[in-house]
Amino acid sequence: MNQKTILTGITTTGRPHLGNYAGAIRPAIKASFEQGLQSFYFLADYHSLVKNKDPKEVKKSCMEVAATWLALGLDTKKTYFYRQSDIPEIPELMWILSTFTAKGLMNRAHAYKSVVQLNEESGGSESDKGISMALFSYPILMAADILMFKATDVPVGQDQKQHMEMVRDVAQRFNHHYGDIFVVPKAIIAKASAILPGLDGRKMSKSYNNSIPLFLGSNELRKLIMKIKTNSLEPGEPKSTEACTLFDIYHAISKPEESLLFKEQLEQGMAWGAAKEELFVYIEDLFSGPKEEYLKLIDDQTYIESVLSAGAEKARDLSSSYLKKIKTVVGIGSLV
Amino acid sequence: MNQKTILTGITTTGRPHLGNYAGAIRPAIKASFEQGLQSFYFLADYHSLVKNKDPKEVKKSCMEVAATWLALGLDTKKTYFYRQSDIPEIPELMWILSTFTAKGLMNRAHAYKSVVQLNEESGGSESDKGISMALFSYPILMAADILMFKATDVPVGQDQKQHMEMVRDVAQRFNHHYGDIFVVPKAIIAKASAILPGLDGRKMSKSYNNSIPLFLGSNELRKLIMKIKTNSLEPGEPKSTEACTLFDIYHAISKPEESLLFKEQLEQGMAWGAAKEELFVYIEDLFSGPKEEYLKLIDDQTYIESVLSAGAEKARDLSSSYLKKIKTVVGIGSLV
Repeated sequence: MNQKTILTGITTTGRPHLGNYAGAIRPAIKASFEQGLQSFYFLADYHSLVKNKDPKEVKKSCMEVAATWLALGLDTKKTYFYRQSDIPEIPELMWILSTFTAKGLMNRAHAYKSVVQLNEESGGSESDKGISMALFSYPILMAADILMFKATDVPVGQDQKQHMEMVRDVAQRFNHHYGDIFVVPKAIIAKASAILPGLDGRKMSKSYNNSIPLFLGSNELRKLIMKIKTNSLEPGEPKSTEACTLFDIYHAISKPEESLLFKEQLEQGMAWGAAKEELFVYIEDLFSGPKEEYLKLIDDQTYIESVLSAGAEKARDLSSSYLKKIKTVVGIGSLV
Repeated sequence: MNQKTILTGITTTGRPHLGNYAGAIRPAIKASFEQGLQSFYFLADYHSLVKNKDPKEVKKSCMEVAATWLALGLDTKKTYFYRQSDIPEIPELMWILSTFTAKGLMNRAHAYKSVVQLNEESGGSESDKGISMALFSYPILMAADILMFKATDVPVGQDQKQHMEMVRDVAQRFNHHYGDIFVVPKAIIAKASAILPGLDGRKMSKSYNNSIPLFLGSNELRKLIMKIKTNSLEPGEPKSTEACTLFDIYHAISKPEESLLFKEQLEQGMAWGAAKEELFVYIEDLFSGPKEEYLKLIDDQTYIESVLSAGAEKARDLSSSYLKKIKTVVGIGSLV
């Protein structure tokens, strides 16, 4: 039980962007090559249904996200890479956990409370307006995702810190009653510096519509990069890299020596136009190989499906026997 | 889609009693022999976890309930008889349904609201005290139980009438968005006359501790029957069968002509002691065959398990392909 096991849930809403790459995909893929470490990556398609009721989009997103991770070099032989909805043991475990989760705990979840607050501020008569049971109970699905594979370390954003506390709470209660069944995981909170700014300087996010999607065509990519907000300093004037979106993006994806060089050029007065051109070329270059691979993959869904099916089979080797044990512990399942 | 499909969930808490027999088991087994009708019976062991955290009791109950239904003549070849927790598609469907179930709907569930009311009346600071997420969301598990097997008719007690409305509501919303996927079931509410009184005259129920369990030893059975509450009329005095627990029990389990004869005997002044003896003999007689079979079965858990496994396999032939279809409709699952 001393082995470090990292588990990462991958959102499957919308196309992955540079922020996802720098903040999640690249570190995760890098970690998967570490020795003495087990890694699980899953496409959280059950979670995606909470927000998205358009089947075509749900499916397309899942496929594009899978292709992205594969194109960027995830080694599916060394890791567990699967689709959440291919593991029936996860919703099964969710029910078992929900018998051990106080409703009062869910009432206090930030994600839920913030929607309630919005409803109340808008003066509506029902504070639960627009809230589905899936939204309300998703920290329990998250707990099942994590506990199912005995994860020890779960990298999450700051916004998931409280939900991770809930996961620990549920696991501990269960263990207290039935004995040492679950591994109590710890949250690995991403550093603020890992958050990439978007075109407008706010956090890069699909919902802000300020993101730079991965694997864009050259024209599209150049157009977006030209939109990055800069100040009005003229060519020749020295430019600071403090709170400079353009530099932050370059810095996040380049090697330290490259980033240092870019900094010096800006300080020496490189024009914003030239700097944008340099970032554009850098991105084109960095992703040229993966982009080619990505375009090949999204044209070959049968291959992606075969990778995901193999991943599910590998994951279910663990989850099915473990769930059997959990069922026995609570008194259900086979009589003999 | 015109075929009538009846689905009955069987509570697996505690040992079945005469009230269960007269109100649920006997009519269900009788219905299973009707032509042109498909019947599903499942041991609701996932539901039982909401109330029971003692694994030994959970398991024992499930086994005894299964043995009872088999001993009383359920034809598992003609029907679907399975353990809820053997059908992973049920919790999977539950999650999908929960993305379509408003939390506001669950807030209004009677079973939940009555616990909240008790909490509030007792002056506690938290109205959700002691309420688990499983208790709060169990109408959605119930919806999954029912919709999974396209049930058209669901026999339930009066207390489940509102939950059945919720099941219909969720199915209709889903169909409205994704097309005609679910069969919208109707509730078959048991008549008040089908409710058997217990030893003290209130509804026979484990929670009132007034029940007559099935398949008791003779001494135990006689002792319980002697406890049935009667009035103080002396032997020889004519006795009315109105609001007469002893007669109600006899009536519920006997043939019309036998019941009529018993009524006449009471009206002609049969002593309570003699009447109790007659009821005792009647029960002993009625259940002598099933009791023998029951005692054989609970000594052969391997056999019960094989029946349940075969039932699960048969049920999963339906549920696994249907869930695949539902997943495709919402956009998750296989890409090809």
